[in-house]
Amino acid sequence: MNIYKKAYLPLGFTANGLYAGIKKSGKLDLALFYSSVPAFVSGMFTTNKIQAAPVIFDKACLKKEKRFQAVIVNSGNANCFTGEKGYRDAALTSSLASSALGLKGNSVLVASTGIIGRKMDVGKIKKALPQLVAGLCRSGIDKAKKAILTTDIVPKEITAKFKVSGKEVTICAVAKGAGMIAPNMATMLCFIFTDALITKRALDQALFKAVWHSFNCITVDGCMSTNDSIMLMANCSAGNSLIDINKNFASFQEALSRVCLELAKLLVRDAEGASKFITITVHGAPSFLKARQAAFGIANSNLFKTAVYGENPNYGRIIAGVGSSGIDVDEKHIKIKVSSLKKRDVTVKVWLNKGKTSATVYTSDLTPEYIRINAEYN
Amino acid sequence: MNIYKKAYLPLGFTANGLYAGIKKSGKLDLALFYSSVPAFVSGMFTTNKIQAAPVIFDKACLKKEKRFQAVIVNSGNANCFTGEKGYRDAALTSSLASSALGLKGNSVLVASTGIIGRKMDVGKIKKALPQLVAGLCRSGIDKAKKAILTTDIVPKEITAKFKVSGKEVTICAVAKGAGMIAPNMATMLCFIFTDALITKRALDQALFKAVWHSFNCITVDGCMSTNDSIMLMANCSAGNSLIDINKNFASFQEALSRVCLELAKLLVRDAEGASKFITITVHGAPSFLKARQAAFGIANSNLFKTAVYGENPNYGRIIAGVGSSGIDVDEKHIKIKVSSLKKRDVTVKVWLNKGKTSATVYTSDLTPEYIRINAEYN
Repeated sequence: MNIYKKAYLPLGFTANGLYAGIKKSGKLDLALFYSSVPAFVSGMFTTNKIQAAPVIFDKACLKKEKRFQAVIVNSGNANCFTGEKGYRDAALTSSLASSALGLKGNSVLVASTGIIGRKMDVGKIKKALPQLVAGLCRSGIDKAKKAILTTDIVPKEITAKFKVSGKEVTICAVAKGAGMIAPNMATMLCFIFTDALITKRALDQALFKAVWHSFNCITVDGCMSTNDSIMLMANCSAGNSLIDINKNFASFQEALSRVCLELAKLLVRDAEGASKFITITVHGAPSFLKARQAAFGIANSNLFKTAVYGENPNYGRIIAGVGSSGIDVDEKHIKIKVSSLKKRDVTVKVWLNKGKTSATVYTSDLTPEYIRINAEYN
Repeated sequence: MNIYKKAYLPLGFTANGLYAGIKKSGKLDLALFYSSVPAFVSGMFTTNKIQAAPVIFDKACLKKEKRFQAVIVNSGNANCFTGEKGYRDAALTSSLASSALGLKGNSVLVASTGIIGRKMDVGKIKKALPQLVAGLCRSGIDKAKKAILTTDIVPKEITAKFKVSGKEVTICAVAKGAGMIAPNMATMLCFIFTDALITKRALDQALFKAVWHSFNCITVDGCMSTNDSIMLMANCSAGNSLIDINKNFASFQEALSRVCLELAKLLVRDAEGASKFITITVHGAPSFLKARQAAFGIANSNLFKTAVYGENPNYGRIIAGVGSSGIDVDEKHIKIKVSSLKKRDVTVKVWLNKGKTSATVYTSDLTPEYIRINAEYN
């Protein structure tokens, strides 16, 4: 498997991004990802009880259909807490994009990110669609990956290429997300594209496993978004022999897991105001979920995160974080090891001695810059 | 009922505080609270799975005995994650204090606050005890209330005086806690003294109710401490007719609830780095716990807290906080009302329209000053 730190779209995919007038800043704010043939789509979404209109819309679409041809994404407005008009706006955005692409209705999924609680102006999207569609091309991913960003400093992108039955298969992914990142599903949008020939059930299973060990293991500020969406499109164009749960599956899973993990780490590295990248591994737990719970107990502790920012080896905050996570622990058997806090990359290892399972989560420190960004964002 | 924003010890109580050499800063770090006759003690403690040695020690004492005569408290060292030596140190501190006061063993409870993971030097406490005991007096509460502080800017103190069967009864309380404050039991130490003649079961019940609507409804940083302790001593010296669950109970409950609530609010007002005092009320929930859960979903959101700091009316973060709390909500029926963010006191009201119960929680904003304090604290 070869990994590239850049997005190279697989066979049959094109993309584009432009400025449609949604963001005040004048930065790119509308992206389109397109497959020339219908593609299976697997999706995972926020578990926040308040869900943005596009999330509700997409979940309904994915229940009815297995294949789609495009995803249209705007940044600058989350289209969340916008009531019935918000839902109609998401549906309208989808059908306008379908028309512009010359497709039947329900061929286009929708995602939004940005401010919560503001009504969308779909007119701006309608006006921009002809130009957006006309510019679709392989290299358009470079504009699209920028058009999905909000407070991110850099785009997040990655490509894996690997062989299945002698044929090259590509998985390419782009993501946004710099704050409001917490389990489950970091506050983020992530779009993954593959040309693999694969069954829908294998695609679903691979995505579920990959997300649980990547995006569901990162936290920036413990805040769960209303818009988290991850969509994996497989257009089956690579000419490989079919991947199914019990056939050619391992290499696909490995590549997808790697893509998701690298991208999740990139989200944390670009976290709002972050000056440190922190890897926390909890060993010796009775299950993966318990290990992850303990690790998040540390990762979501503001006191731990400020101590790392201050390069202040206050280990008590680690043990307090483990204890507050709610898992059963025995103080006498806990061991903690922390790398030097002087470096940008910090690792924390905790041994619970309560079982045989581990989990690793990734987080950033809490800095005055995080506060500056979020005090001003609106 | 008369409320005084100062600690006036009830009949039969004395206190003292001094510098024993535990804190590097040279500030007062050892306090003693004493009742001249054995007093019923009700206690509530942290629910963190990691508990400091004095918490474990006190819980064991309170299981065995109903009456105690003193509490000895040190600041500067939490005596937590200190293993079996830590427990022996807590027990030794108790027995040394008992001896110094001329009492039988097991008459003195212990509390500690400060850095986690450092061994205690009980020698310093032993050396300071004669002077600590010699200086016990009514006005010694003014030194004691300072000796329990860590990062607090000001002492927290309050007194309620009210009549039971024509006799004046006093409830007086002091507390510490400025960060690491979260449910359950704000990270804090709180000592409450009353001269009321009251049964142990009435004392327990009154404390439980008062704490659930005060200390368990505040949060500063969502971090739950290992040392949270609240102890209520009743020495029955006021000469009132007996208070029991079904007798003279209401006025005692009212006064105790008021004392706890005022003190809890003082903790939030003095929160580390806070520039705002935020009151969040959730109405229309199916139960108090659900209402509180929704309110804490907002109160513990770093994004909400930075928005308030920035006086940035980003209401989306309120709705995202409610949704991430995990309670069932219906977006269509939620209403939100926020007072002007320009003032020091900010109120947030949320109507869920899912039931008839309300809960109010109190929190502060998240500021660069919070980070500075906690990056440096060690």
